[in-house]
Amino acid sequence: MPSEPSKDLVTVPNPNPERDYEVQCETDELTCLCPVTGQPDFATVRIRYVPDQLLFELKSLKLYIWSFRDDGAFHEAVTNQILDDLVRATAPRRMTVETIWKVRGGITTTVTAAHP
Amino acid sequence: MPSEPSKDLVTVPNPNPERDYEVQCETDELTCLCPVTGQPDFATVRIRYVPDQLLFELKSLKLYIWSFRDDGAFHEAVTNQILDDLVRATAPRRMTVETIWKVRGGITTTVTAAHP
Amino acid sequence: MPSEPSKDLVTVPNPNPERDYEVQCETDELTCLCPVTGQPDFATVRIRYVPDQLLFELKSLKLYIWSFRDDGAFHEAVTNQILDDLVRATAPRRMTVETIWKVRGGITTTVTAAHP
Amino acid sequence: MPSEPSKDLVTVPNPNPERDYEVQCETDELTCLCPVTGQPDFATVRIRYVPDQLLFELKSLKLYIWSFRDDGAFHEAVTNQILDDLVRATAPRRMTVETIWKVRGGITTTVTAAHP
Amino acid sequence: MPSEPSKDLVTVPNPNPERDYEVQCETDELTCLCPVTGQPDFATVRIRYVPDQLLFELKSLKLYIWSFRDDGAFHEAVTNQILDDLVRATAPRRMTVETIWKVRGGITTTVTAAHP
Amino acid sequence: MPSEPSKDLVTVPNPNPERDYEVQCETDELTCLCPVTGQPDFATVRIRYVPDQLLFELKSLKLYIWSFRDDGAFHEAVTNQILDDLVRATAPRRMTVETIWKVRGGITTTVTAAHP
Amino acid sequence: MPSEPSKDLVTVPNPNPERDYEVQCETDELTCLCPVTGQPDFATVRIRYVPDQLLFELKSLKLYIWSFRDDGAFHEAVTNQILDDLVRATAPRRMTVETIWKVRGGITTTVTAAHP
Amino acid sequence: MPSEPSKDLVTVPNPNPERDYEVQCETDELTCLCPVTGQPDFATVRIRYVPDQLLFELKSLKLYIWSFRDDGAFHEAVTNQILDDLVRATAPRRMTVETIWKVRGGITTTVTAAHP
Amino acid sequence: MPSEPSKDLVTVPNPNPERDYEVQCETDELTCLCPVTGQPDFATVRIRYVPDQLLFELKSLKLYIWSFRDDGAFHEAVTNQILDDLVRATAPRRMTVETIWKVRGGITTTVTAAHP
Amino acid sequence: MPSEPSKDLVTVPNPNPERDYEVQCETDELTCLCPVTGQPDFATVRIRYVPDQLLFELKSLKLYIWSFRDDGAFHEAVTNQILDDLVRATAPRRMTVETIWKVRGGITTTVTAAHP
Repeated sequence: MPSEPSKDLVTVPNPNPERDYEVQCETDELTCLCPVTGQPDFATVRIRYVPDQLLFELKSLKLYIWSFRDDGAFHEAVTNQILDDLVRATAPRRMTVETIWKVRGGITTTVTAAHP
Repeated sequence: MPSEPSKDLVTVPNPNPERDYEVQCETDELTCLCPVTGQPDFATVRIRYVPDQLLFELKSLKLYIWSFRDDGAFHEAVTNQILDDLVRATAPRRMTVETIWKVRGGITTTVTAAHP
Repeated sequence: MPSEPSKDLVTVPNPNPERDYEVQCETDELTCLCPVTGQPDFATVRIRYVPDQLLFELKSLKLYIWSFRDDGAFHEAVTNQILDDLVRATAPRRMTVETIWKVRGGITTTVTAAHP
Repeated sequence: MPSEPSKDLVTVPNPNPERDYEVQCETDELTCLCPVTGQPDFATVRIRYVPDQLLFELKSLKLYIWSFRDDGAFHEAVTNQILDDLVRATAPRRMTVETIWKVRGGITTTVTAAHP
Repeated sequence: MPSEPSKDLVTVPNPNPERDYEVQCETDELTCLCPVTGQPDFATVRIRYVPDQLLFELKSLKLYIWSFRDDGAFHEAVTNQILDDLVRATAPRRMTVETIWKVRGGITTTVTAAHP
Repeated sequence: MPSEPSKDLVTVPNPNPERDYEVQCETDELTCLCPVTGQPDFATVRIRYVPDQLLFELKSLKLYIWSFRDDGAFHEAVTNQILDDLVRATAPRRMTVETIWKVRGGITTTVTAAHP
Repeated sequence: MPSEPSKDLVTVPNPNPERDYEVQCETDELTCLCPVTGQPDFATVRIRYVPDQLLFELKSLKLYIWSFRDDGAFHEAVTNQILDDLVRATAPRRMTVETIWKVRGGITTTVTAAHP
Repeated sequence: MPSEPSKDLVTVPNPNPERDYEVQCETDELTCLCPVTGQPDFATVRIRYVPDQLLFELKSLKLYIWSFRDDGAFHEAVTNQILDDLVRATAPRRMTVETIWKVRGGITTTVTAAHP
Repeated sequence: MPSEPSKDLVTVPNPNPERDYEVQCETDELTCLCPVTGQPDFATVRIRYVPDQLLFELKSLKLYIWSFRDDGAFHEAVTNQILDDLVRATAPRRMTVETIWKVRGGITTTVTAAHP
Repeated sequence: MPSEPSKDLVTVPNPNPERDYEVQCETDELTCLCPVTGQPDFATVRIRYVPDQLLFELKSLKLYIWSFRDDGAFHEAVTNQILDDLVRATAPRRMTVETIWKVRGGITTTVTAAHP
C-alpha cells in the first residue's frame, strides 16, 4: 500500500455486495494549481457511490486526493478526472463526484458529475 | 431485560400495527476500533424504520449500540451488520441505517444501507 | 370553550373549504411520563393537515397538548393517539403528526404518523 | 400609484411573458389583530408565483401587506384572502402564499395555500 | 480576453462534452440601479448549467456580472436578460439563473428563470 | 389589571429584594409608525434590569409594548421613552433597554440606553 | 439515594478541593405551573459553580429539577429558590443560576441570580 | 434634504442629550472601486456612536453610504474617511466605524477605527 | 514514541520560548466509563496553554486522550487529572482544561479547571 | 511588486498614521507540509494589527501566505514565523497572528501569538 501521494487507488473487497448501499466520503483538503495563473485553488470534494465488488481503502483515497497538489487543473476537468479515476478503480454501480471551490474573482464554483 | 451492553435486542409489541408509521432513533454514541490500526472510531447512527409487529425497546437499543465498543469493525461492514441485526430482531416493513463517522485522514465517511 | 387542559378538542368552521390548503401547528411544550420509570419525557409536536370542513381552535389545541402532562405514554403510542384524536375531531382531508423527543439513554427519537 | 396602505394592488407588464419563470417575495412585516381577543398577531409572508402578463409593482405590494394592520383576521382566512387578492390582481399561471405566525399559546402556526 | 466590465462573454471548450455534468457559479457581487428611483440594488446570482460544447471562462463571467453596475434594471428583466445572454454565449444543454435581492420596502425578492 | 394595550405598567413585589439579580425580557413584537412617512416600523426590544422592590407583571409589560402600535416615534426617542417609563414604574437598581429595528433604506439600527 | 423527584439534594465529596474549578450543569427539562393561571411554564436551567467540599450527585440534581413539575412558581422566585437550595446543599465558593423561559405573551424571560 | 447620493450629511437634534446612549447603524450596501485595478469592492459598514447634540437623519446616511459607488478608495482610507466625515457632521461623544470587505485574493479584510 | 494509548505524554522543545503565545487543542474523542453504572460517557476536551520550554507532541496527546477508554472516571475528577497530567508533563506558564459531556439524565455538564 | 509566491512582503504608506485603528486580514488558504510525515496541513490565518507608518499591500500578503505551500513547518513554529515576518515588514504598533488547523488525529489545533 503506498504511503506517498499517488494517483494509484487501492481497493478492498466489498463485504456486502449482495445489497445496494451508499458510501459518501468528503474532504476539504483538495488543492491544485490554476493552469493559467499558477495560483493555488482549494476545494471540498464529496464522493457518493454504491459499491459493487470493491470499496476504496480510505488511506489510499486520502493519498489520491493529495496527489493533485502540484497539478495544473481546471475546475471542470479535475472533477471529471476524479470521477473517471474512481470509476476505473472500483467499477461502482453508481457514483457522483462533487467539488466546491473557494471564491475566485468573487465567484464560488461547484461542479457535479455522475456515473453512469 | 439485559442491563449490560449486549447484541441481544429486546422488542415490545407495536401498539398500532394497523398503520404504516415511521420511527427514527439517533445517537452519536457509537464507537468501535479500527481492525487495521486498533485506533478508536466514533460515529453517529441514525435508524429509521416502519415497524410491523415489533418495536425496539429503547434501553435495549442503547445497550446494543454500546456493545460495539471493543469490536474491530470497518465502517461499511458495521453499518450492514447493524441493519441485519435490527431487521432480524424486529422484521420491520422498511428500515434504513445511516452511520456518519468522524474525520480520519481528513475524510468524513457516511454509510447508508436500507432494507428491503 | 374549556380553559383547563382537556382531551376535548374545539373546532371552528373552515372559512375556505373550496380549496385544499395546508395548516401546520408546532409546539415544543408536550410533556408526559414514561409508563415504565415514571420519569418525565419532553417532545416537540408538529401537526400538518389539509382541513375539510373544520379547523382546530388554537387555544383548544394548546389545552389538548397540555392534557398529556400526567399521562403515562410510550413515544409511539402517544403519537398515534394524537393523530387519532385530531382526525376524529376535524375529519381532515390529510394529516401528519410528528413528535421529536429529547435525549434518553443518549438516543433522540422521532415518530411520524399520517392519515390516511 | 397609491402611497398609503391600500388593498388596491398595482401591476406592471411582465417583460418576459414568453417564458415560465418564478418570482418570490418575502417580508416579515405582516401584522393584524386577532378577531377574538383584539391582540396583535405578527407573521412572515412568502409569495411565490409564475407571472403571466402582469407583475406586482413592489411598492404597491408593500402597501398591500401593511393594509392588514388594523384588520381583525384569523390565520387561515387572511392567508386565503391574500392569495385571492393577488390572483385577482395579476392572474398568474401559478401562485403559492405561505404565512408563518409568531408563537401564540406556545404554538407556531404556518398556513400554505396555492392557486390553482 | 477583456479586462474591463463587459457584456461580451468569453468561452472555453468543454473538456468532457461526452458527459452531462453540472456547473454552478455563485456570486453576491451583482449591483445595478432601480430604473424608477435610480437607487442602487444588490443581489446574489446563482447560475447552474449543464454545458454542451462550451464553458464560461471564469474571469469573463466576473466582468459580465460587474457590467450591470451602471444599468437601470428591474429585478425580473435583469434575471431574464442574464439567462438569455448566457444561453446565447454557451448554448448549454440546460441552464437556471437565480437572483436574490436585498430588502427593499421590507421585502426580499428572488427571481428564478430556466432554459429550456 | 388592564387587558387593553396601555402605557400604565403594573408591578408586583420583588420576592427577593435582599439579592441583586438580573431579569431580562425580550420580545420581537414592538411596532410603531414613522413620524415622517407614517410607514410602520418593527423592532425587537430587550430589557435587562436588576429589580429593587418591584418587578414588572409580565402581561402588563406585553400590553405596554403593544401600546406603541399607533404612535409616531423615532427610533432613538422611543427607546429612551421606554427606559424612562420602565424606570419610573419600578425604580430598578439598574436597567438597560435595547431596540433592534428592521431594515429601512438598507440600514439596520440598534439603540441602547441605560439607567443610571 | 432517592429515585423519585425530590427537593432533597444528594452530594458527593469534591475530589479536588485544593483547586478553584468550575462545574456547569444545564438542562432544558424544568417545568412548573403559573401560580396565577395554572398553565405550564417551561425553562432551561444553567447552573455554574465553584465547588468547595461538596459536588452535586448528578442523578439527584435531575430529580431535584423534576420536583418543580407540580409547583406553582413565578419565574423570579423559582430562580432564587433554586439558588438558595443549591447553595444550602453544597456550600459552594461561588454559584450562578440562570433560567431561560419559553415565550409567554410574546415575551421570553431570563432570570440570573448569583451567590455570593 | 438631498435625495441623490451625496457626501453632505443631514442631522436632526438628539431628543435625549442628557443621557449617554448608543446608536448602531449597519448596512451591507457599501461599494466602491479599487484605485489600482478599477474593480468593484463590496463591504458591510457598522457605525456605533454615542450622540451629543445631533443624530444622523437615516435617509441622509443611506445617501452618504451610496455616494462612494464611483469613488476609487483603499479599504483603510475609506474607513478613516467615513469616520472623519461622520464625526465632523455630528460631533458625537464617541464613535466607531467598522468595515468588513468581501474576499479579494482569498483574503477577507476588516478595518475598525474609533473616535476619540 | 508510543503508538498505543498511553498516559505517558511525549514533549518536544518549544521553538519560541522567548514569547508568551497560546496553543489550543480540541478533540471530541474522549470517552470513559461511569464508575457507578459502568455505562460509557463521551466528552469534548479543550486544552489551552501558554508553553514554557516544552510543547505536546500531537500524536502523543491523541494517545493520551484515548487512554481513558477503559477507565472508570467521574466528570470532575477526570478533568482535574488531565490538567494535573498535562501540567506535570510540560510545566506550562498557564493552562486551562475544559471538558463538555454529552447529555445524561437530561443534563449536559461542563467542567473547567485552570493552572496555576 | 512580485507576482509569484514569495516571503518578500510589500508595504504601502499608512494614510492615517495619526490614529490608532485596527486592520484584520483573514484567509483559509494557508497550507504547508508536516516536517515529520510530509503530509499536507491546512489552516485558516487571522492577522490583526494596528499599523504605524506602513500597511500590507494585499496582493503581496496573499503571495506571502501561499509561499508556505512547499515548506515543512510545525504549527507553533510557522505561527511565530508569520508574526516575526509581518512585524519586521511593517513595524506595527500591535499585532496578533492566529492559525486554526484542520483536524489531525482527531484534534483541532489553534495557535495565537502577539506582538509586543
